[in-house]
Amino acid sequence: MPIQPDVSSLTLNRLSVYLRCLRVLSEEGATRISSKDLARRFNLSAPQIRKDLAQFGEFGIRGVGYDIAVLERRLVTLLGLDRPRRLIVVGVGNLGRALARHLTFNQNNYQVVAAVDTDPGKFGMRVGELTVRPVQELAEVVRETGAEIGIMAVPAWAAQRTYTELVSAGIGAVLNFAPVTLEVDPEVPVKNVDMRIHLEELGFLLNSR
Amino acid sequence: MPIQPDVSSLTLNRLSVYLRCLRVLSEEGATRISSKDLARRFNLSAPQIRKDLAQFGEFGIRGVGYDIAVLERRLVTLLGLDRPRRLIVVGVGNLGRALARHLTFNQNNYQVVAAVDTDPGKFGMRVGELTVRPVQELAEVVRETGAEIGIMAVPAWAAQRTYTELVSAGIGAVLNFAPVTLEVDPEVPVKNVDMRIHLEELGFLLNSR
Repeated sequence: MPIQPDVSSLTLNRLSVYLRCLRVLSEEGATRISSKDLARRFNLSAPQIRKDLAQFGEFGIRGVGYDIAVLERRLVTLLGLDRPRRLIVVGVGNLGRALARHLTFNQNNYQVVAAVDTDPGKFGMRVGELTVRPVQELAEVVRETGAEIGIMAVPAWAAQRTYTELVSAGIGAVLNFAPVTLEVDPEVPVKNVDMRIHLEELGFLLNSR
Repeated sequence: MPIQPDVSSLTLNRLSVYLRCLRVLSEEGATRISSKDLARRFNLSAPQIRKDLAQFGEFGIRGVGYDIAVLERRLVTLLGLDRPRRLIVVGVGNLGRALARHLTFNQNNYQVVAAVDTDPGKFGMRVGELTVRPVQELAEVVRETGAEIGIMAVPAWAAQRTYTELVSAGIGAVLNFAPVTLEVDPEVPVKNVDMRIHLEELGFLLNSR
């Protein structure tokens, strides 16, 4: 069946959640589950589960539920988790260094394969098993390592330029940690991880109490 | 004017973005800006800006625009940025240690005041200027330091229990980095920073090309 490229971000994020839930069930030895039981067990919505999954084919059998292994494999493929994804970290301050280690160790198919920085004082520095290289060599590093996703851990003022450099270097997608709204090339999607925005929202909620 | 506690998360996040834009303009020496110019300059929507801000009072003057300093101060107050916010990091693996350093150094009013872990091998360890304490002393640490926001950098399997412990210890809000959907006490809001979900979404988009 064809993949629908216009699936919403919210739907995709729910698919990630469903996959996690199915993995928990698999580990427990379960083989089938209904949308209702899945919803009840993990605080989800059964109609939402059915609607989300229906976009990608017929998985459930009425009265029997979903085959956990089949659905798990399908979600793994959909989310691109059936093949390695190579990441390059741009900016190796405290956060960049932690991400280089954290994203490599904790995800099986995501692997940080390179790290670059603008600071000559950091060239040649070791981060886990990587050696930091000059950002001037970005295109070369991307070509050599096959990196597909750029992890931007740079200051806000450097973010737009860094994004443009990643696009020129042939990177396909970007995870941005800089607290800034980027002008984005439609061919190279960006997801923002903005801790300050979350903290400010929590600050508002704390004030309102 | 009264604060509306039911302001949506999306609106609040846009307020954070507006504040950043206003700060850039302030630094450039600007004193007034119209919603139209603000939108054009920072890739925003003018009707959205007017609608968002109208929820909190009358800031703009038709034909004159917003007084940047006044609006900036109002947003700072709304988002709780006019006073220190004390954070406690729970879990001092690679990510927790980086967050303890990153969140303290890069935000002026957010300050990490404590770090705890379950691993006795980490008790007494230094993280920046902090000393890691046992999670068993959580309530005591929160009381001593006045921590309001818990930063959860624990494995997925430990997340629900950690959240419950933070609630019991008197924490008011939580920023969760564990890739798991928490059962949340309505009194203690949670924002999730889920890097895996973002990476999986990017993986889907890379696959669809």
